[in-house]
Amino acid sequence: VKTPTIAVILAAGNGQRARFNMPKQLVDLAGKPLVWHSLKKFDDSPEIDVIILVSNSLCQERMWGLVREGGFSKIDGLSGVITGGETRCESTLSAIRYCDMEITGGREANFLIHDSARPLVTGEMIAGTVAALDKYDAVTTAVPVTDTIAVMGDDGLIDNVPSRGKMYAVQTPQGFRLSVLKKAYARAIKDPKFEATDDCGVVKKYLPKAKIGIVQGDKENIKLTYASDLAIIENILRSRGVA
Amino acid sequence: VKTPTIAVILAAGNGQRARFNMPKQLVDLAGKPLVWHSLKKFDDSPEIDVIILVSNSLCQERMWGLVREGGFSKIDGLSGVITGGETRCESTLSAIRYCDMEITGGREANFLIHDSARPLVTGEMIAGTVAALDKYDAVTTAVPVTDTIAVMGDDGLIDNVPSRGKMYAVQTPQGFRLSVLKKAYARAIKDPKFEATDDCGVVKKYLPKAKIGIVQGDKENIKLTYASDLAIIENILRSRGVA
Repeated sequence: VKTPTIAVILAAGNGQRARFNMPKQLVDLAGKPLVWHSLKKFDDSPEIDVIILVSNSLCQERMWGLVREGGFSKIDGLSGVITGGETRCESTLSAIRYCDMEITGGREANFLIHDSARPLVTGEMIAGTVAALDKYDAVTTAVPVTDTIAVMGDDGLIDNVPSRGKMYAVQTPQGFRLSVLKKAYARAIKDPKFEATDDCGVVKKYLPKAKIGIVQGDKENIKLTYASDLAIIENILRSRGVA
Repeated sequence: VKTPTIAVILAAGNGQRARFNMPKQLVDLAGKPLVWHSLKKFDDSPEIDVIILVSNSLCQERMWGLVREGGFSKIDGLSGVITGGETRCESTLSAIRYCDMEITGGREANFLIHDSARPLVTGEMIAGTVAALDKYDAVTTAVPVTDTIAVMGDDGLIDNVPSRGKMYAVQTPQGFRLSVLKKAYARAIKDPKFEATDDCGVVKKYLPKAKIGIVQGDKENIKLTYASDLAIIENILRSRGVA
């Protein structure tokens, strides 16, 4: 039996930063809510078997409607929309648990995690991430950093300026052997200081020997963070003939 | 006698990467060559006493014309345009030597370095950089990194995912006590492996005890790297009422 490939779309933000007057995942982009664009790409990707959408509880009804109206074939319009947590990592954990209980029954899977704030993900990135899981325990899409990065010390002064050639800006999708991600999270949740901004970072911290590969991302696969990013993202969509 | 404040504008690229069909510093931005925008900001800043423009030898005549036509008051239209080197650091070194010989005669100065590929520098950043030199040996404008950064090891796998909260993307202007920068470069040029993408990195590497501060940059102070950046920069100029 082929190992199933499951994609998790993270869309559980509560719009607390209030830059968009609504939860970011619902911001209109080319006539569709932001999260729709990621759902569409993963639904259209032959490598993906099942999609799980992680929402906050307030938006859940809106997400059910969005999934049903979207005609997506790989996500269960009701039970496939699960409730996330306060933080990104709690949402990942919800998705792992749901997957284990409702989809894989504890068996191995390829497990992709994608942030709905990156609507410009492409089929190539998804395919590349899945393919890399043949070789690695975990993998992230990433692009070489073009800025020089400085690390600030506890005294507020610059502590270190690492060589730029080895620095990558991490994007999503990220991919994992589900068993590896589960083991990393099982350790992480016992750590009272646990916090992370991405899931490969969780694996690296709690399973230092895991082999984490890099798949070529795309400079255009930007994350919607500031209101001004919306015009940039729309320009790129337009250049792709979508908007 | 007040310590003089000297600004170096780096514009010595030779357009080798050929993304713009001409040296980047001469690309048209809102009707002016790219480098003009930085010259204008520094010339208009009351904190700056003298400007040095670092060009490549092929563009030198074009730069002379640009400086004369621009009516800038702080740069000598002929001798203030100096020839840089193959690399960014060689250009910095040319500027240090010129400053020592022709301007300060070896005495102390505040020495600002700015990359002409960042035309969106503001007067606030320039003032902030100069002011911070009262407290620090060196200072860089920088913004908190919004991406998660991964460091790749020699094996091509991810070696480390440092905590994002302490990571800053370095911009220019950067500022130095000239004596500190000179000492760092004097050591750097003896190192056969010397290479660097910014001058605060040179100071940190060769004078580890120097106190390097961070001044708030601006997310909009982006560097022109790709052709697609040009539209983004023009949009920002327009929002400022310039273009």
